[in-house]
Amino acid sequence: MTAREPTTPLRRTGRRSGDSGTREAILEAARTRFAELGYDAATIRGIAADAGVDPALVHHFYGTKEKLFVAAMRFPVVPSEVIGLVAGADRDRLGETIVRTILGVWEREETRAQSLALLRSAVTNERAATMVREFVTSAILNVIATVAQGDEPEYRASLVASQILGLGIARYVLAIEPLASASAEDVVAAVAPTLQRYLTGAVRA
Amino acid sequence: MTAREPTTPLRRTGRRSGDSGTREAILEAARTRFAELGYDAATIRGIAADAGVDPALVHHFYGTKEKLFVAAMRFPVVPSEVIGLVAGADRDRLGETIVRTILGVWEREETRAQSLALLRSAVTNERAATMVREFVTSAILNVIATVAQGDEPEYRASLVASQILGLGIARYVLAIEPLASASAEDVVAAVAPTLQRYLTGAVRA
Repeated sequence: MTAREPTTPLRRTGRRSGDSGTREAILEAARTRFAELGYDAATIRGIAADAGVDPALVHHFYGTKEKLFVAAMRFPVVPSEVIGLVAGADRDRLGETIVRTILGVWEREETRAQSLALLRSAVTNERAATMVREFVTSAILNVIATVAQGDEPEYRASLVASQILGLGIARYVLAIEPLASASAEDVVAAVAPTLQRYLTGAVRA
Repeated sequence: MTAREPTTPLRRTGRRSGDSGTREAILEAARTRFAELGYDAATIRGIAADAGVDPALVHHFYGTKEKLFVAAMRFPVVPSEVIGLVAGADRDRLGETIVRTILGVWEREETRAQSLALLRSAVTNERAATMVREFVTSAILNVIATVAQGDEPEYRASLVASQILGLGIARYVLAIEPLASASAEDVVAAVAPTLQRYLTGAVRA
């Protein structure tokens, strides 16, 4: 579930068009600020100022900066809503849980298309790369790092990111066979042990 | 070493400008044909026809279709010239050999830039994706598949491709830390066992 279409009191009072105009102004200001400043440095206060609204209205519409990013950039899921699956997983099934979670996003056409659009922009545009890197680090990798065993949890999480990104590129963008046609269960069997070792095994020379 | 600047008899006879004009016409025709038809379906005969030269001249200048692709697309290395390292490696060091070979390309600024430019175009452009996928499959993955142990060598090679592509995206394009700053030796320690398992371990459900 994304934060794109929450029901708000304003909707029910019939002020739909003004409401949606305000939302669009906020999303447009958010896209500009995230792109120019990156995810970390952009603030709800600054975005509200650009949109000419009170910061409280941005919070009312979108809740958190994470959810505002999700709505503005059409990120396919709210990471904090799905990452609990990973944080709650058995220690010896961390890798499997992560692969299954990401496949849950990528095996559905709409959310896959959103993911890949953002990945394409990050690969081709320096500012988009900064924005996506900071968001993924803040909203996803920092949580994955908390479940990593042993030292250097951030390094482990960044290795997980490398295999997940490569899976997305190879399977869905370049469509390299036979990986592109393999079943989701086969992908889990192949990739889960990789992520498990990155999170819990030896990863330095 | 690439096939971009071979010394030819024509050069030594002083016909440099006509020679380089002909070469450029061949490379331009090659870029068009590879992009339109993909790597597999493009032929030296067809490229020669488009360039208005005899196919023998294309062979004389560039040798093989692989080397013509390398020259036309500025691919950073001639795969057949480095892949022998992998084919000749000890069975229990296949993963390590592949990571070291690819890092040999990516840790040098010029060849990294060429790789990433091609990867960017493949990620954003459907025709470039087809072209790069076919070339990588034909020139690299088919060789990696020959060293894979057990059944389904092509599936194993495509899994290797997923981790290698993801390493390139995460470390060099998105610059996700701490992976982006890790030493090459640390990357080898982390990633080599992944590739080794993809080539020799269990990879199906």
